[in-house]
Amino acid sequence: MSLTIAQLAADLSLDVRGSGDNELSHVASLHRASVGSLSFLSNPKFLPQLAATKATAVIIRQEHAADCPCNALISKNPYLSYALAAQRIHPLSDAIPGIAPSAVVGENSQIASSAMIGPQVVIGNNVIVCERVIIGAGSVIGDEVTIGDDSRIDARVVLYRTVQLGKRCRIASGAVLGSDGFGFANNAGEWVKIPQVGSVTLGDDVDIGANTTIDRGAIDDTIVGNGVIIDNLVQIAHNVSIGDHTAIAGCAGVAGSTKIGKYCSIGGSANIVGHKSIADHTTITAQTFVTRSIKTAGVYSSGVPMQENSIWRKNFARFKQLNEFSKRLRKLEKKK
Amino acid sequence: MSLTIAQLAADLSLDVRGSGDNELSHVASLHRASVGSLSFLSNPKFLPQLAATKATAVIIRQEHAADCPCNALISKNPYLSYALAAQRIHPLSDAIPGIAPSAVVGENSQIASSAMIGPQVVIGNNVIVCERVIIGAGSVIGDEVTIGDDSRIDARVVLYRTVQLGKRCRIASGAVLGSDGFGFANNAGEWVKIPQVGSVTLGDDVDIGANTTIDRGAIDDTIVGNGVIIDNLVQIAHNVSIGDHTAIAGCAGVAGSTKIGKYCSIGGSANIVGHKSIADHTTITAQTFVTRSIKTAGVYSSGVPMQENSIWRKNFARFKQLNEFSKRLRKLEKKK
Amino acid sequence: MSLTIAQLAADLSLDVRGSGDNELSHVASLHRASVGSLSFLSNPKFLPQLAATKATAVIIRQEHAADCPCNALISKNPYLSYALAAQRIHPLSDAIPGIAPSAVVGENSQIASSAMIGPQVVIGNNVIVCERVIIGAGSVIGDEVTIGDDSRIDARVVLYRTVQLGKRCRIASGAVLGSDGFGFANNAGEWVKIPQVGSVTLGDDVDIGANTTIDRGAIDDTIVGNGVIIDNLVQIAHNVSIGDHTAIAGCAGVAGSTKIGKYCSIGGSANIVGHKSIADHTTITAQTFVTRSIKTAGVYSSGVPMQENSIWRKNFARFKQLNEFSKRLRKLEKKK
Repeated sequence: MSLTIAQLAADLSLDVRGSGDNELSHVASLHRASVGSLSFLSNPKFLPQLAATKATAVIIRQEHAADCPCNALISKNPYLSYALAAQRIHPLSDAIPGIAPSAVVGENSQIASSAMIGPQVVIGNNVIVCERVIIGAGSVIGDEVTIGDDSRIDARVVLYRTVQLGKRCRIASGAVLGSDGFGFANNAGEWVKIPQVGSVTLGDDVDIGANTTIDRGAIDDTIVGNGVIIDNLVQIAHNVSIGDHTAIAGCAGVAGSTKIGKYCSIGGSANIVGHKSIADHTTITAQTFVTRSIKTAGVYSSGVPMQENSIWRKNFARFKQLNEFSKRLRKLEKKK
Repeated sequence: MSLTIAQLAADLSLDVRGSGDNELSHVASLHRASVGSLSFLSNPKFLPQLAATKATAVIIRQEHAADCPCNALISKNPYLSYALAAQRIHPLSDAIPGIAPSAVVGENSQIASSAMIGPQVVIGNNVIVCERVIIGAGSVIGDEVTIGDDSRIDARVVLYRTVQLGKRCRIASGAVLGSDGFGFANNAGEWVKIPQVGSVTLGDDVDIGANTTIDRGAIDDTIVGNGVIIDNLVQIAHNVSIGDHTAIAGCAGVAGSTKIGKYCSIGGSANIVGHKSIADHTTITAQTFVTRSIKTAGVYSSGVPMQENSIWRKNFARFKQLNEFSKRLRKLEKKK
Repeated sequence: MSLTIAQLAADLSLDVRGSGDNELSHVASLHRASVGSLSFLSNPKFLPQLAATKATAVIIRQEHAADCPCNALISKNPYLSYALAAQRIHPLSDAIPGIAPSAVVGENSQIASSAMIGPQVVIGNNVIVCERVIIGAGSVIGDEVTIGDDSRIDARVVLYRTVQLGKRCRIASGAVLGSDGFGFANNAGEWVKIPQVGSVTLGDDVDIGANTTIDRGAIDDTIVGNGVIIDNLVQIAHNVSIGDHTAIAGCAGVAGSTKIGKYCSIGGSANIVGHKSIADHTTITAQTFVTRSIKTAGVYSSGVPMQENSIWRKNFARFKQLNEFSKRLRKLEKKK
């Protein structure tokens, strides 16, 4: 969608430096921008690219405006302003109301007339699909699922029976919500399955990545709060609760019954063991192994940074002697 | 399904303390229980919740029975008894025999008349689907697959050609069994694909989690034993063999040709490198990196527990000096 | 497909020791081989199996030929020769041209008459499917996708809108290419989605594993070079670029905007943080955490090898004191 610099500035309450008349038709990176491009500068390391950009306008901080060779939109937070601008220039497609002829819909399901149900979709019984929902091709929606207004389910998603989605949720392809939790009792070495009778409840504005899995609760529900964003290939086990506006990056895993607070940031491939609590506003860096509850917000880590292999091997051989080193060190100290 | 406390006690050979007449209609956690609820107490840390429970009956150890404010079912293993009770109160739905009109079935495939084939399912040629099997919506079953009695394939599963499933297996949505193993020969830097002509064989009572992948063997089969349970997002590479009744938690990865014994427990996000053997009854804790064979059953670990980030960074800086520390320590010792 | 030893030897330019007349009908491992089997010996540890093999022919190095109890095909690289031989004996099935009646194809899409479109496939608008392409059952191909000649898409794959595949690519089941990157700006604690307007471009001869995810670029494309092979359950984030002939093993994760060179080897469950560059010909071992750019080709590691749990716990307790050890060691040294 094309709009002028002046329109965009008005929408986002930004000041313009230069002309507001030019049309912006698309977003582009500084070094690939051309006529009609809107770009942005957030990280000063890209200042050299700014000098050479062919963009029609750049969203930029006041302090860099003098370096901008084209029209500038002045923002205190160019990255946020860029996000909002890109949403206007590249808006989501509207739902085209209707149910594809190849879709299969069960009994007593209520599909809003403004909803769009794609080809080969399967919808069970007693499902509620609210206004302007889009369900992508090949998705399977179990019995008694509810999907709130304006939610978008991409192709080939599975929502098991009774899963509840709030408004404006987005579920990427391959995600599976509501599969049975990994609950088994042991009977003399053999595993006895425990029926998983809880469900999964998502708040509003939840974003779930591709091939991510969220298990249903054993008894009560697995809960994902409002505004939570979860990347691809993340595993959320049964009975987990995730507070509002928490972000979880790709390949992370959260074991059963753990409670993650609000406004947390969980790095990629981090793992949190079961039955722990994580305080609001906690940051877990990538590949960290969270083995205990976190009561005080802060930054927590245990990822082991890479070394050149031959050096790593030597240090690691010494690691295996650490307890012995400790004893030897104490012995030396006592001799003094 | 509703049943009385007395009926349940008889089924599970448990003693009743209190009345056996009340009906149990559902399971619930102690703190959310209400009339008709069956709950359980296994971990003593929930004793405070027991005191306040509104459950109709609680499965409990003899030693805690006096603390139970309602009817009690006395068990030496309340968690196991709960599993068995929940299976009775919340039984699996029966297969509703028949093939959905939108399903596509190939040539020479034998579908038991008691089996249930969901909408949009695709079944290839020469497939055998045994009694009471349920195949969920959108699943794709390749040529020459066999699925044993009472197995349940959830929505959107893929079983590639020639995969064999035993009886009473359960495969959660998004799982892929029988994809090509990651087998390539290197030709002057370029990868030459090696045809993967083995398959995947599952025993009876195998449980596979959502979006888990099990590759077909390069020449012989990848094998999963009886009663094995595998969680979500687990990767099992080609030619792996997993012994009976082993459990593998979420996000774990097992590299090619590794043999895991019986009754093992592999923690979440653990990784086992290829061509190793793991003894029966071995426990691998979460996030452990198994780099060699394990000949003696025991507990093995290498997950790196989290620390506060600023402390971690200091310790890690020292880790990189460990080999040097070792030399300095020895030098000091020699001076004595 | 059956062929004689002599035919195979001629095709692969190998010398025969013994008779060239026998037919080879299948490949087999040394210890399971029978009449008609072709096997190979690459790793000398299997020499005992060679002595007892019932194979009709074995591909083998000159130095082991004297130990071969059957016909031998002499190769300097038996593993590579085996790969090429197996491709001949077990060739890929040809595409059976046509579009399954249950498939749904959008407007203005060009499907080559030699292509094979499976049951329940959904193809969007303006899609180009080139010669001899196979699209497996239940796959969903978004608008404006292009799939090059001889590419094979297995069952239940998703290619989002505008994804571009070169020639002879293979995409295993459950893979998702072109899902939105994990791009959000933070607005006072709440996440604002950044439209992901780039796409995913694959070169020729790319192999993608089951349930692997590759996100579309934020602005420019995520790029996968020619001959790249990627295993199962791998996460490739937005704007990543992967050089030609690089291999990435299962469960690895590559964060946003990282550039991996050509001919690299990334081990299983390795993680590479965002915005880094990895030199050509770099090897990253399994479970390594790559936290900085790599400018010099070499082998890099940080995976923490397992120990027996009680020993590990002691060493790990000491690890937490490492910074303190360092100070104590220095103090002792100064006293001298």
